[in-house]
Amino acid sequence: MLIVCDKEYNANGKLVLKEEQEPCPNEEEVLIKIKAFGINRPDILQKKGLYPPPANASKILGLECSGIAEKVGKNVTSIKEGDSVCALTAGGAYAEKVSVHHWHCFEAPTNLSFAEAASLPESFMTCWTNIFEHGMLERGESILIHGGNSGIGCAAIQLSLWAGAAVICSVRTEEKKRFCESLGCTSVINTQKEDFVKHIDKNFPKKMNVIIDMLGGDFTNKNLQCLREYGRLVQIAFLKGRFPRLDLMQIMKKKLVITGSTLRARSDEEKKRIADLLKKNIWPEIESGKIKPCLYKEYQLSQINEAHEFMENSMHMGKIAVNIP
Amino acid sequence: MLIVCDKEYNANGKLVLKEEQEPCPNEEEVLIKIKAFGINRPDILQKKGLYPPPANASKILGLECSGIAEKVGKNVTSIKEGDSVCALTAGGAYAEKVSVHHWHCFEAPTNLSFAEAASLPESFMTCWTNIFEHGMLERGESILIHGGNSGIGCAAIQLSLWAGAAVICSVRTEEKKRFCESLGCTSVINTQKEDFVKHIDKNFPKKMNVIIDMLGGDFTNKNLQCLREYGRLVQIAFLKGRFPRLDLMQIMKKKLVITGSTLRARSDEEKKRIADLLKKNIWPEIESGKIKPCLYKEYQLSQINEAHEFMENSMHMGKIAVNIP
Repeated sequence: MLIVCDKEYNANGKLVLKEEQEPCPNEEEVLIKIKAFGINRPDILQKKGLYPPPANASKILGLECSGIAEKVGKNVTSIKEGDSVCALTAGGAYAEKVSVHHWHCFEAPTNLSFAEAASLPESFMTCWTNIFEHGMLERGESILIHGGNSGIGCAAIQLSLWAGAAVICSVRTEEKKRFCESLGCTSVINTQKEDFVKHIDKNFPKKMNVIIDMLGGDFTNKNLQCLREYGRLVQIAFLKGRFPRLDLMQIMKKKLVITGSTLRARSDEEKKRIADLLKKNIWPEIESGKIKPCLYKEYQLSQINEAHEFMENSMHMGKIAVNIP
Repeated sequence: MLIVCDKEYNANGKLVLKEEQEPCPNEEEVLIKIKAFGINRPDILQKKGLYPPPANASKILGLECSGIAEKVGKNVTSIKEGDSVCALTAGGAYAEKVSVHHWHCFEAPTNLSFAEAASLPESFMTCWTNIFEHGMLERGESILIHGGNSGIGCAAIQLSLWAGAAVICSVRTEEKKRFCESLGCTSVINTQKEDFVKHIDKNFPKKMNVIIDMLGGDFTNKNLQCLREYGRLVQIAFLKGRFPRLDLMQIMKKKLVITGSTLRARSDEEKKRIADLLKKNIWPEIESGKIKPCLYKEYQLSQINEAHEFMENSMHMGKIAVNIP
């Protein structure tokens, strides 16, 4: 089968396609013939050698895909051969085929294209656990989501609205602002035009219950300023800096919580738990069209380097997916 | 009545005694004729102008006391005149009398001296909420307590042992180490002789569920290294530095929580909630002698400056109290 190879990246700065032996599913796994895969920011970091895959994971890039179940292990009852599925992968989705634990496979929503279905698992699983489990967002609370236009941002906005929260987000252009407003946000801040701390102070004087942040750096203490008593800051990446200077006094005075998580490093059991919650609560909302995949741009497999470049330039408003012919 | 006045502190570096009008209890308050009060580290900071009292609080120093209920407000039924009590005060305990909301008064345990009873409320309330509420320590978990010899440390060690946790603490001398061992700690680290991160790595390879820290500064990231997955770092002061450099990657990878709180800034209702939990769970253990006040040294009112100096030199192993004749 063809795979996208990142081994040459450091030499010539490009991903290349390469033939490799196809994976063999074990008793618990489903072999998926991939129709599309999603591009995620960790893929860029992994390609650059900044985010090594976990010890037992595939060395091939790619954290989510959709396709057809081609072969199922003998203990798999939830999925049968020929089913349309999408899945969270522990790596290996930048390929024509991948083996995935059946726990991490979803039925592909019948109203979505393969590219749309491929763009669901990573963002929605990441957002579910960080917003509701680590962030403990509840109905009637407020949430600030930085980078609302990102793939993660779109999923976070929709899940938070679904949960009955007031949703504020930050973006960096007017076009992205209009996009986030169209998703139903209570308020969208263009941080190129306005300081988000001042915006929150002025428009939401009670401040925020939860903040989802992928930036870190100088955003960290600003985030603490935007939280109300017992507020929770949930860190899911640190594009602006891994080592911010933390103000312990703010944490103590307002009894704040700083927490965060990654999805990839989790056990199979934890991923199953999160997937099951999405299947129960969110998949029906996607099937009914109330929650949308927010796919922004599709590429063909031969355009993989353009797809990466597009994400690296942060031009997207939603997800980017790659189709396999 | 006599009070300890810190107004002159900045001029001559000394606290002085001064006459002032006695407070008048409202309908919900108890006027306590003070027999003893506890010294707490925030008193030192307040004296130096580094920790201003909350807006509605007494400007007089002092966060806890014991004594006799001299007058009770007309809505007070839990305490009657002549009762021996101890209390958390919102300030004002460095005096011959203080008015306190009856919610924040405890029966003085019958087996304790007034000086011992005076040293209970602040430490035990601080430790209860930070260990069990913010730190969510559970039976069978492990906790690392820095400064185990402090007043807070002694209370934290005893509450954690009572809850069925493995208790590790850090101190800075061999004498303090022996003292903490005598309280029943599983392991005590002398940080002058041994790096606490290495000690935890070697002796507790699964690492800690909870850390109670009053230091901050360079301890913060070391603490994160000592936490296991889903571990909680609870900050209750920052004697080594308010603005540590935080490693967001550690938080995300291990799904850690950094949190903390202060007691003084809380609402009367919150303080009542914490006091009620102590009355129910811990006061019987104190009455039976299983949990001890750990009073280390007593002073007379005229020796108030010596008492402060003793705390500032960190020579104590337990609490310091001042008796009023």
